Amino acid sequence: MESQKNNNWKNKIHEVIYEADTPSGKLFDILLLVFIIFSIVLVMLESIVSIDREYHDLLYIGEWVVTILFSIEYILRIISVKKPLKYVTSFFGIIDLLSTIPMYLSFAFVGSQALVTLRALRLLRVFRILKLARYLGASNHLRASLVASRVKILVFLFAVVITSVIFGTIMYLVEGEANGFDNIPKSVYWCIVTLTTVGFGDIAPQTALGQLITSFIMILGYGIIAVPTGIVSAEYVRAGKKSDEENEALIANNNQQQKAPTKDLIVHLNSQHCSNCHVSNHRDNADFCYNCGNQLHP
Amino acid sequence: MESQKNNNWKNKIHEVIYEADTPSGKLFDILLLVFIIFSIVLVMLESIVSIDREYHDLLYIGEWVVTILFSIEYILRIISVKKPLKYVTSFFGIIDLLSTIPMYLSFAFVGSQALVTLRALRLLRVFRILKLARYLGASNHLRASLVASRVKILVFLFAVVITSVIFGTIMYLVEGEANGFDNIPKSVYWCIVTLTTVGFGDIAPQTALGQLITSFIMILGYGIIAVPTGIVSAEYVRAGKKSDEENEALIANNNQQQKAPTKDLIVHLNSQHCSNCHVSNHRDNADFCYNCGNQLHP
Amino acid sequence: MESQKNNNWKNKIHEVIYEADTPSGKLFDILLLVFIIFSIVLVMLESIVSIDREYHDLLYIGEWVVTILFSIEYILRIISVKKPLKYVTSFFGIIDLLSTIPMYLSFAFVGSQALVTLRALRLLRVFRILKLARYLGASNHLRASLVASRVKILVFLFAVVITSVIFGTIMYLVEGEANGFDNIPKSVYWCIVTLTTVGFGDIAPQTALGQLITSFIMILGYGIIAVPTGIVSAEYVRAGKKSDEENEALIANNNQQQKAPTKDLIVHLNSQHCSNCHVSNHRDNADFCYNCGNQLHP
Amino acid sequence: MESQKNNNWKNKIHEVIYEADTPSGKLFDILLLVFIIFSIVLVMLESIVSIDREYHDLLYIGEWVVTILFSIEYILRIISVKKPLKYVTSFFGIIDLLSTIPMYLSFAFVGSQALVTLRALRLLRVFRILKLARYLGASNHLRASLVASRVKILVFLFAVVITSVIFGTIMYLVEGEANGFDNIPKSVYWCIVTLTTVGFGDIAPQTALGQLITSFIMILGYGIIAVPTGIVSAEYVRAGKKSDEENEALIANNNQQQKAPTKDLIVHLNSQHCSNCHVSNHRDNADFCYNCGNQLHP
Repeated sequence: MESQKNNNWKNKIHEVIYEADTPSGKLFDILLLVFIIFSIVLVMLESIVSIDREYHDLLYIGEWVVTILFSIEYILRIISVKKPLKYVTSFFGIIDLLSTIPMYLSFAFVGSQALVTLRALRLLRVFRILKLARYLGASNHLRASLVASRVKILVFLFAVVITSVIFGTIMYLVEGEANGFDNIPKSVYWCIVTLTTVGFGDIAPQTALGQLITSFIMILGYGIIAVPTGIVSAEYVRAGKKSDEENEALIANNNQQQKAPTKDLIVHLNSQHCSNCHVSNHRDNADFCYNCGNQLHP
Repeated sequence: MESQKNNNWKNKIHEVIYEADTPSGKLFDILLLVFIIFSIVLVMLESIVSIDREYHDLLYIGEWVVTILFSIEYILRIISVKKPLKYVTSFFGIIDLLSTIPMYLSFAFVGSQALVTLRALRLLRVFRILKLARYLGASNHLRASLVASRVKILVFLFAVVITSVIFGTIMYLVEGEANGFDNIPKSVYWCIVTLTTVGFGDIAPQTALGQLITSFIMILGYGIIAVPTGIVSAEYVRAGKKSDEENEALIANNNQQQKAPTKDLIVHLNSQHCSNCHVSNHRDNADFCYNCGNQLHP
Repeated sequence: MESQKNNNWKNKIHEVIYEADTPSGKLFDILLLVFIIFSIVLVMLESIVSIDREYHDLLYIGEWVVTILFSIEYILRIISVKKPLKYVTSFFGIIDLLSTIPMYLSFAFVGSQALVTLRALRLLRVFRILKLARYLGASNHLRASLVASRVKILVFLFAVVITSVIFGTIMYLVEGEANGFDNIPKSVYWCIVTLTTVGFGDIAPQTALGQLITSFIMILGYGIIAVPTGIVSAEYVRAGKKSDEENEALIANNNQQQKAPTKDLIVHLNSQHCSNCHVSNHRDNADFCYNCGNQLHP
Repeated sequence: MESQKNNNWKNKIHEVIYEADTPSGKLFDILLLVFIIFSIVLVMLESIVSIDREYHDLLYIGEWVVTILFSIEYILRIISVKKPLKYVTSFFGIIDLLSTIPMYLSFAFVGSQALVTLRALRLLRVFRILKLARYLGASNHLRASLVASRVKILVFLFAVVITSVIFGTIMYLVEGEANGFDNIPKSVYWCIVTLTTVGFGDIAPQTALGQLITSFIMILGYGIIAVPTGIVSAEYVRAGKKSDEENEALIANNNQQQKAPTKDLIVHLNSQHCSNCHVSNHRDNADFCYNCGNQLHP
């Protein structure tokens, strides 16, 4: 009975923290978003010397308020999940820890306070809270095709790196230390700067031969940008067409025949996390976790 | 009778100013375009110290001529619409006001004259006058799909900003004030400069680790440019295909069957503005405003 | 009889100079190409002070050789066409004149020799000689669709300019002369440098507000690059599909039915120019100019 | 008998070195990859003065270890192929030689050791070992269409070069030596830097006219980037559609009819190289080289 009550209390917290579809869950998400942005602004202001000098005490207090709130959130997250270790060792679990611990360490180690800037990584939660990913990839097919083209783009970027190593080495031989190409790693760095058309200009070729090779590198970089763009465009077009066809097929099925159940259904998934296995994206009418069978909140 | 006459006079002005399809309306648009460009050139010339020193009086007179003409236009615009407040508080209404008022204020406040440069915002009227938007998006479907992809692109750009905040903070830790990364906001600014492949070079990484991270940022920026391009390409292809199919369907309907009226019709919309509710894009054969029922000019 | 002979001689020259499909015409084109590139290299070498000092006489002789050869070519071109004025006032006619006349003028006016660099414009002939345009646009449909999207791209670039004027003016107000934004035109130039992601870095924002606005401009520039790319991609895809379908239709017609003559035929056009009206792209089996009816060379 | 035994021994080596599908072949490839990356890292470390000073002896020993291993590999490659001259004169044969010989030459010629950096070219083998090309082009059709668009892109880049020569010459006339445009080749180099949106900023226009022309060049460069991207996108879309259709046709053939053998078959090609003619990409069930008829390893 005691345990049951305890469980209900934990369940309530889990619902507030991990779910976004209940009023209290939405409120929590908005508050979390506000505090994350507030903490980033604090860290930014602190890094500006003139502001830090004037408002140091105020910023320090704000820092501690955020740290304590984030600490409470971290502890509640650990308490409310059934498998705390899974959360603690997860990507967001580590980030959540890293954004609170530096302030506590600052008592023991001077300078460790600088690490509060790691709190910026909490911004990644914004993607989860605002569910931004859903806008980028409208359908599962689109996402699948983007994953497919991601491999191609990675290979492409790998090719960019190899090209940079080769041309960087050549430019080191041609230009040498006298013209700022101090060593091969720096020369490779310069080559990436040039190939990606960034072009800082802190290092620039001085010899005629160096400028000739640079011209070639730049035109190469200008031309090969077409490859990843072409890949993604084509995948989007294909994915869009497929989902068009499927939608049409679904509509045709629903409107005209209404006989057999369709195989693919457009299902709305909610953001509820299973309190046991931490898996999300359950169907709206699901009562049990599709992954572990644990009962979900109604 | 008096009121009727008065109304006719107002209607005439409304027709000249807000419509582009009558000869007098066209003339007004062209004159407005010439004066906007003339006023921009004036402001530009004034900002060049050597020119301003020599021709200061001439430029000052030109400035007043433009100001007075724009003031008259502003007053006429207010008079000729039935709901002046709607115009005054509209986007273009505010810009129109801002492009005249600084000269008058210059009597009272020294230095407010610098704000005449805000007149550059009137250039946005060029889009309306030349109806440029119509060239970019050929059909309504295309425009709709661009709006759809605009959301995706905004999310994408939001992702760029978050990435910049995270990498900017990391670079601030790695490079520090000694190498020009004075504070986190400046470091984030530098990161946006790098990620968008602009690369001014006023700030550039000096440490080996900083250059390694920069290489990663640049390659990332080079790769993710493919995403918005792919989205827009795909939307254009889809929109183009849809409008192709619809045109074919329309042609098929018109040529072969000629039985039932088609649901979608290609309708030419004119640029007439309703003098009552200020809504434009009426059908060529419309006699009444589709929005408020006010009678339109024939 | 005399006139007939004279005409034959002119016809022969016309054939050599203006046609690319006869052996002598091909040889002429190759020689012309070699001399154009040779003349460009000469001009380039002359501009390098150290080389000019050492080999001045050699370069001067080469300059005169090229000038005389180009002069002869220019005169022959005038003689061999029936309507010399049309050639003289044409785009290439003016370029051909501009690439010879500065050397003759150098006797009368000191310094006019610098204008021989205008000879670089003759490089544009390379496109005609190598018929490069044919590779870029494979079919007439493709070319037509590129022309269509060219309008869209121009409007787009026009929008880029207006955006630059507005943001350039704002940056002039924000940064001012102290930070290198001397006047509005220079500020607009800087804005174009930034928006197109070139980013020289000779001028860079120094104030926090300026850097914030710059961040916005850069992200805007990064995002809108997607628009022209999307337009061209979509037009290529559409044009490619259309020409695919038409080719299939043609093949279907030719292979299976062979009944009625097809409306569209794939016709090989040669590079022969009519000696009367100067129009090119005649069909291979044409005996008369399709434009003026003048008899063509067999 | 002796020759037979000798042959078996050679065959074994050939299998290990040139094939990737046997366990020993895979091990060899991985070891080769490790040593190539190790040798690149060695060369990079050596180029950093501070590291080279401290660990010179260690790096020198490592250099010799790599050189000797690469020499052995080179000799084994020559021995194991039936036509050694073909390998020696091949692209990779020359690179393999160039990556070993500089160390030996360093006894005779001081300074030739710098050429060990040419070893970076061996990185190109990574593409072959990891078979990266297969990820970029998923089907043969795609590769064919990329080859087709490669021609278009080359013509496009050629157009970029000609544009740069013309505008570079104009900028040399406008800006002159005083503003860093020392000579035409340097001016052309600057123009390529600008047109490709790299924008180092080591040379930047100072005159108003120069900045106006630069604005035009940059907007041009911003606009024409759309052309190669559009070409590649369209080719990818087309190629993807074709292979979709063919796959569907194949599946339809295989599933439903099963009557006649299909013309096109999806065939898995292995990486085995023929020991006689050095051709690779044999079918998995091939017993003889499709090129010269030499028996392949089972």
